[in-house]
Amino acid sequence: MYQLILASNSPRRQAMLKELGIAFRVQTKDIDESFDPQLPPQEVPAMLAKRKAAAFMAELQPEEVLLTADTVVICEGQILNKPENFDQAVEMLTLLSGKKHEVVTAFCLTSLQKQVCISDQTAVYFRPLPLDAIKHYVTTYKPYDKAGSYGVQEWIGMTGITRIEGSYFTVVGLPVHLVYEALQNW
Amino acid sequence: MYQLILASNSPRRQAMLKELGIAFRVQTKDIDESFDPQLPPQEVPAMLAKRKAAAFMAELQPEEVLLTADTVVICEGQILNKPENFDQAVEMLTLLSGKKHEVVTAFCLTSLQKQVCISDQTAVYFRPLPLDAIKHYVTTYKPYDKAGSYGVQEWIGMTGITRIEGSYFTVVGLPVHLVYEALQNW
Repeated sequence: MYQLILASNSPRRQAMLKELGIAFRVQTKDIDESFDPQLPPQEVPAMLAKRKAAAFMAELQPEEVLLTADTVVICEGQILNKPENFDQAVEMLTLLSGKKHEVVTAFCLTSLQKQVCISDQTAVYFRPLPLDAIKHYVTTYKPYDKAGSYGVQEWIGMTGITRIEGSYFTVVGLPVHLVYEALQNW
Repeated sequence: MYQLILASNSPRRQAMLKELGIAFRVQTKDIDESFDPQLPPQEVPAMLAKRKAAAFMAELQPEEVLLTADTVVICEGQILNKPENFDQAVEMLTLLSGKKHEVVTAFCLTSLQKQVCISDQTAVYFRPLPLDAIKHYVTTYKPYDKAGSYGVQEWIGMTGITRIEGSYFTVVGLPVHLVYEALQNW
């Protein structure tokens, strides 16, 4: 039986994995998350999930399986990362307002013997968001750890998102159905 | 300013409404939830949400707004209610396995002056579910208070649902984006 390591500080990823009923421990490393702007946006999460895995390879033990993941928000061909400050968060949400965007989450399962990397994409539709609602949300919820400056499960997601097409959990940050399936066949 | 009453014992509806940041109190009545089998399945939740509201009309106060709601799962033209026992729950999940179904949630906002009723529908896709997984879920999670015998936010939803089309919160049991919008314009 393998020992699962989740390489993510995201409390949302930790909570989802816990709900799956799989035992795991959390261990993270600081990684350079920059990327070549020439790379197609859809490929960035898989590239970063692989880079996160590579940082662990020297110390991975035979019984261990490492889970790394990365999520990006793509709107009009542009990647929205985690916002660095209030103004950037307001700017991102203003861009997302009234539009469809894509959330891409990729994950890698890595052991000494093999690596499986899977990318999943969900379309998300925001209604037009008034500027005062955007400012209220950023002030109250401080979404500075969230790609695209929003949490789908928070106030702005509950009031502003009218429709999604794909997996909800991919938007939260981990396509748990695909993680579960990959671990079933490990 | 109105006083909101939520007429639902569902902890999921209560949690979602709380996350919206709207003050409310919970008050429920026992209602006959039977319906004419000739009624198109998609119309059943709105009919039941209205019936739940009608039960409060005699005692509603001028400043009060009542929120009633009903959710059904429809698979192959057939309504799946809350399961009455283990075997019914297993049977429902076996029917949903490997298929697309629809979740319809309707809500009514009712005051002495007006009533707004809105119905929302989301398509949900389950992967094929092994019988032992279904039995494990029903035994562990006891989904006897849930239409269709599953909670989208529970283990079976996280591992078994591959895609949705529509609002996630409509599947949970309340299209909060539409409730919020209706209350904004109240």
